[in-house]
Amino acid sequence: MVSPSRTNTFEIASRFRSGEGLLWVDVSETGPADGQFMSDVFGFHPLAIEDATRASERPKVDLYNDYYSLAFYATRLIGETGDLDLQPFHLFVGANYLVSIHEQPLPEVVDSMGRWELKNGPLQPKIGAAVHALLDAVVDEYFPLMDQIADRVDELEDSLFTEFNPKSLETIFRLKKGLLNMRRVVAPERDVLNHLLRRELPVFTTEDVAYLQDVYDHLVRVTDSVDTYRDLLSNALDSFLSVQSNRLNEAVKVLTIASILLMSSSLIAGIYGMNFVHMPEIRWPLGYAWALGLMATVSISLILFFRWRKWL
Amino acid sequence: MVSPSRTNTFEIASRFRSGEGLLWVDVSETGPADGQFMSDVFGFHPLAIEDATRASERPKVDLYNDYYSLAFYATRLIGETGDLDLQPFHLFVGANYLVSIHEQPLPEVVDSMGRWELKNGPLQPKIGAAVHALLDAVVDEYFPLMDQIADRVDELEDSLFTEFNPKSLETIFRLKKGLLNMRRVVAPERDVLNHLLRRELPVFTTEDVAYLQDVYDHLVRVTDSVDTYRDLLSNALDSFLSVQSNRLNEAVKVLTIASILLMSSSLIAGIYGMNFVHMPEIRWPLGYAWALGLMATVSISLILFFRWRKWL
Amino acid sequence: MVSPSRTNTFEIASRFRSGEGLLWVDVSETGPADGQFMSDVFGFHPLAIEDATRASERPKVDLYNDYYSLAFYATRLIGETGDLDLQPFHLFVGANYLVSIHEQPLPEVVDSMGRWELKNGPLQPKIGAAVHALLDAVVDEYFPLMDQIADRVDELEDSLFTEFNPKSLETIFRLKKGLLNMRRVVAPERDVLNHLLRRELPVFTTEDVAYLQDVYDHLVRVTDSVDTYRDLLSNALDSFLSVQSNRLNEAVKVLTIASILLMSSSLIAGIYGMNFVHMPEIRWPLGYAWALGLMATVSISLILFFRWRKWL
Amino acid sequence: MVSPSRTNTFEIASRFRSGEGLLWVDVSETGPADGQFMSDVFGFHPLAIEDATRASERPKVDLYNDYYSLAFYATRLIGETGDLDLQPFHLFVGANYLVSIHEQPLPEVVDSMGRWELKNGPLQPKIGAAVHALLDAVVDEYFPLMDQIADRVDELEDSLFTEFNPKSLETIFRLKKGLLNMRRVVAPERDVLNHLLRRELPVFTTEDVAYLQDVYDHLVRVTDSVDTYRDLLSNALDSFLSVQSNRLNEAVKVLTIASILLMSSSLIAGIYGMNFVHMPEIRWPLGYAWALGLMATVSISLILFFRWRKWL
Amino acid sequence: MVSPSRTNTFEIASRFRSGEGLLWVDVSETGPADGQFMSDVFGFHPLAIEDATRASERPKVDLYNDYYSLAFYATRLIGETGDLDLQPFHLFVGANYLVSIHEQPLPEVVDSMGRWELKNGPLQPKIGAAVHALLDAVVDEYFPLMDQIADRVDELEDSLFTEFNPKSLETIFRLKKGLLNMRRVVAPERDVLNHLLRRELPVFTTEDVAYLQDVYDHLVRVTDSVDTYRDLLSNALDSFLSVQSNRLNEAVKVLTIASILLMSSSLIAGIYGMNFVHMPEIRWPLGYAWALGLMATVSISLILFFRWRKWL
Repeated sequence: MVSPSRTNTFEIASRFRSGEGLLWVDVSETGPADGQFMSDVFGFHPLAIEDATRASERPKVDLYNDYYSLAFYATRLIGETGDLDLQPFHLFVGANYLVSIHEQPLPEVVDSMGRWELKNGPLQPKIGAAVHALLDAVVDEYFPLMDQIADRVDELEDSLFTEFNPKSLETIFRLKKGLLNMRRVVAPERDVLNHLLRRELPVFTTEDVAYLQDVYDHLVRVTDSVDTYRDLLSNALDSFLSVQSNRLNEAVKVLTIASILLMSSSLIAGIYGMNFVHMPEIRWPLGYAWALGLMATVSISLILFFRWRKWL
Repeated sequence: MVSPSRTNTFEIASRFRSGEGLLWVDVSETGPADGQFMSDVFGFHPLAIEDATRASERPKVDLYNDYYSLAFYATRLIGETGDLDLQPFHLFVGANYLVSIHEQPLPEVVDSMGRWELKNGPLQPKIGAAVHALLDAVVDEYFPLMDQIADRVDELEDSLFTEFNPKSLETIFRLKKGLLNMRRVVAPERDVLNHLLRRELPVFTTEDVAYLQDVYDHLVRVTDSVDTYRDLLSNALDSFLSVQSNRLNEAVKVLTIASILLMSSSLIAGIYGMNFVHMPEIRWPLGYAWALGLMATVSISLILFFRWRKWL
Repeated sequence: MVSPSRTNTFEIASRFRSGEGLLWVDVSETGPADGQFMSDVFGFHPLAIEDATRASERPKVDLYNDYYSLAFYATRLIGETGDLDLQPFHLFVGANYLVSIHEQPLPEVVDSMGRWELKNGPLQPKIGAAVHALLDAVVDEYFPLMDQIADRVDELEDSLFTEFNPKSLETIFRLKKGLLNMRRVVAPERDVLNHLLRRELPVFTTEDVAYLQDVYDHLVRVTDSVDTYRDLLSNALDSFLSVQSNRLNEAVKVLTIASILLMSSSLIAGIYGMNFVHMPEIRWPLGYAWALGLMATVSISLILFFRWRKWL
Repeated sequence: MVSPSRTNTFEIASRFRSGEGLLWVDVSETGPADGQFMSDVFGFHPLAIEDATRASERPKVDLYNDYYSLAFYATRLIGETGDLDLQPFHLFVGANYLVSIHEQPLPEVVDSMGRWELKNGPLQPKIGAAVHALLDAVVDEYFPLMDQIADRVDELEDSLFTEFNPKSLETIFRLKKGLLNMRRVVAPERDVLNHLLRRELPVFTTEDVAYLQDVYDHLVRVTDSVDTYRDLLSNALDSFLSVQSNRLNEAVKVLTIASILLMSSSLIAGIYGMNFVHMPEIRWPLGYAWALGLMATVSISLILFFRWRKWL
Repeated sequence: MVSPSRTNTFEIASRFRSGEGLLWVDVSETGPADGQFMSDVFGFHPLAIEDATRASERPKVDLYNDYYSLAFYATRLIGETGDLDLQPFHLFVGANYLVSIHEQPLPEVVDSMGRWELKNGPLQPKIGAAVHALLDAVVDEYFPLMDQIADRVDELEDSLFTEFNPKSLETIFRLKKGLLNMRRVVAPERDVLNHLLRRELPVFTTEDVAYLQDVYDHLVRVTDSVDTYRDLLSNALDSFLSVQSNRLNEAVKVLTIASILLMSSSLIAGIYGMNFVHMPEIRWPLGYAWALGLMATVSISLILFFRWRKWL
């Protein structure tokens, strides 16, 4: 493992030029000097270096004369909010060297590099093996992410018909956004792997291709899951909206029925509050009871009517 | 039929190595020892063994040097809830052996194996026939599932316009989820079959290919049905929401009309409840009847007006 | 024309084996004996016979050694309800014979067979001509169906903005369901025809191919129409829902305005119904008129205000 | 230019059979005699003649031995309603003749024919040039149509957020329907042109192909526009529905607030309208003012409360 | 750099005909004379000239004998409104000349031309380099546009659940429209680049192709972003509508509860406002307090009931 600190670039260059042994150069926190270094030592194409040192590149693979340039993404959930942290990294893959470039430190690169270094000596895996080990480590990180999303979708679905939670809407919205971002990264990565598999690339042995096929299968599974969860969320959103509209219906119905009951009784009270001189009930000894009884009768009749009309 | 219990692995290995006769090994409730066994005896690729012993694999077929690795799903409805139980299983298909691996006991495997064993002797079907018999048995189990879903969709559609049932929404939601899960399994299985059909695979005779084509046709039919039922459910959901909104309209309309009638009469009662000293109607002998008549007249006029405006 | 009644199967078999002349065998109301008969006389593949005698097969064509097996659907509207009656039928097409199998009697088969029989003799059309005549007759039956659907869609669209009919929703729902079922049959039939056209099949002469191309064009037209009507119905549904929501808006607006007017007047009546000893208006000679005038003034002011705010 | 009136069919036939010169026969208001004529003189295939004399054919091109049969549509807006008038026409294109068949008179045919006739003599354009001139004239008529639709969509979008017009819904509905009909014609026409371009057809010179490519580009542009306007209209419909729902929200909110204010004041009036003997406020000299003040205080407090809750 | 002012067309023509050196002719504010000039000097096809001088062409590339005709768009945001300004331009690319035609002055053309001119002499880049430099400059202008859209979408999403802003709807509508227009330009431009890359075009060296691939990658990224933002906006619209409907629910619920409380108390007041002669409470010393207490008790009971039913 070699980091291109300012002092050892000469050593890297000489090892590279000697053509002996395998070389994995890791460039983190890239600066302008690194671009210069890659141009001078490895002679990479200016466009490829521009891609590698610029953020927000789309996952892709470009074939140059005797090396590939490969853009990929590592993903991670940020704390509680559930937002995705997308960390692009770039690989230059040559016959006997691998250059990995990334802005932030990536544990996947450190781990893969460490394990590759351990097996130093005549049995050290070739460059192809280093590449697929790294890609495998990166893609394996997607699964806990998907599991977490799956858990939240399940939770959401379970709660949908048992209790109404207005926060569900925001959860659906955030999950959908996360899946959109996930898809935006995974779909082109799948195309990159497909590209690597279809072409006969000298760097990769038949054994390597089997492992790349495995990485490809994992990406297909992630894409499938993303699509399924998007459909499930659309389904959940439809249900949420319909449950919400059901609640509106319910509220309007029950409460307006209450209005009608109260207004009917109020009308009766209003009638007996009129000041007519000739109003027989007023003088009845049981007039007051009669009025209250009338209110009760009308209310009960209305309730029975609404029951009969299936509104209650 | 041979189960790789700890004691007979040697026997299996020797029969396999002898290359004589046909061998169907069934591994249920897989553990680490089984992976080791498969690696030692059959020399399967580590990636293929990893796929076979890990759950939640996507249906797929991989071609290795002299065997295929095939992931597939058996499905079953769980009791009343209507949720799908997806049980993955894995096949290794060689020239003269078949290894089936699954977590849970699968009746389809037991049945197919039993029938295959019965025909032991010189007339015993070849490995290709065993494979298509097993796949056919598994896929045939999908049809009762689809029939059950079809019955529920029909029921739902029939009830949609006759009686309003708020539970319909949950039914639609659950059916759609079931279809999404079904599709997630069936679509890649169709691709697997298509893959087996397009390639010239030495394991399968021309006769076998006709039977695999039949399994493929069944999967196409299931996929078609899944798509049709999804469309029908979307159609039903639209109708449900519209019927629901219609009911809201109805409730708001009829009940607000009631409010207007009651409020008009209340206003009249309120007017004659005012305490003005000079208020001629108060002293009319028929004042009370006049007020009640006024209420009736206004109410009937309003009803006629609403009828004329087509609101009632 | 020969029907495989129990007594003439021997005759059919001998005519078939002689290889002389052309043979069209029609099997209606299929039973187990028919499967046996087809297997014995023509030697059809067991899978093909299973397809032919089982209902609810998907339209498809399978090529066997020296014959094709072809599944197709005749459609018909059932009475008033507008539901589709889908009647599957099956054809076996050999060099000099045609076997047609169907559960229900099909007038298209009877007619095509009759016309084919008429031209008996040296000028009798070949098997290819019999096949395309039959398919043409079946597909021509789709057009009156589509015309009927088109008429209903037109009617629906015309009425959408002139008068509100809550039944429109059910009509849209039923038409969409019918189109879904239609598409489910027609789309694979189009693929079947495309399949017949692309392959060089010895049964069909160049002349036959032109006629099959015509049947194919008709199926493309039907599929196009189905898609267009689905889009028109989605468009109509959107409009229906929006008109419905417009009516809710209208009802809520006008009626709540009425509530405000009535409540304002009621408040004035309530104020003058208070029992305060010192309340100057009560003793005014024109107090009563003043109160009624106040009610009118407030009501008119509110109406003008709502007009100004464009709510009325 | 020759019209196959009953008297000159002999002349046309002889000119056609002589194989000298170029012939453009235009058949308008087709009747059964025309079919017979085309069959007798040019020997067209019965299916092609059936297509040509039947209305409502789908745009398509069929290649026969030494001529093509081509179905196409001219479109026109009908008056004010904005509905499309689709007029099918049919072309038979041979090496040295062109037969155009249409029900209604088509100005595009008359114009193209006129210009083609003008250049009579040795410099007269070949049949290929006549075809692309005619198709170009027909397709050029689509652009004013699209411009008109574009203008209406723009108008609609501009008005959407400034003033609410319930008629917008009907406009959206009609425009969408028009675009669906347009697409139904233009999409297969594009395929027809693509077909003409991809095949090496002896009738068309390299120069003709450049012009046909131009017609094809125009059709692609029209299809693109149709799709864009459909998306814009869906966008506009969503906005319309949301603005409509916003207005409902607004109405419900403001008016129900009014109800609460009025009911609170009414309650106070009701309390002081109670007939209790012991009710101190009743005898206060300023009791009436106190009650009115209380109503004002409560109303203002409620308004402030609603302001604070952001409901007003 | 040469502008075809009326005086120097002769010079351009002679330089072009000499076939020595490279020529970049820029035609701005095109008029009829320019079409004539291009036809006379370069002999471009009339259709290509028509395309070049007519506005609103679709991005495309046409291959003529020894030059390409290429239509492309420069885009710019107009001020505050966020509307896109689409400026078409046209290129004719020959072996040793480049003609750029546009209506409005385009800074991208001026800049690219300037930089190309600077390197005059034996080291001057070839025509292919001029083309990709120009296209690169144009496509690079799309990114600030996309960033601006991204910022607005982010802003919108952040505000969606914190504060309700009815203006959000108009923002969503305008952004969606902008993305539709963007897509309409970018998608065919991507096809144009793909076309240039797939064909072996003599004008472009291997080095040029790498740069064109880079431009293509940028266009793919823009298209991806457009699609992602459209999905995010649909997601945001769904959420907006649901939040809006939630607010309606909330308003209806809280305010109708208020109505019920007020109406209950009013009913009590109404009852004690009745004029019955025999009404015991009226004469109670604490009758007034009893009535007010009853109102309070009923109101509190109702609030507790609504709390218990989870409506409050």
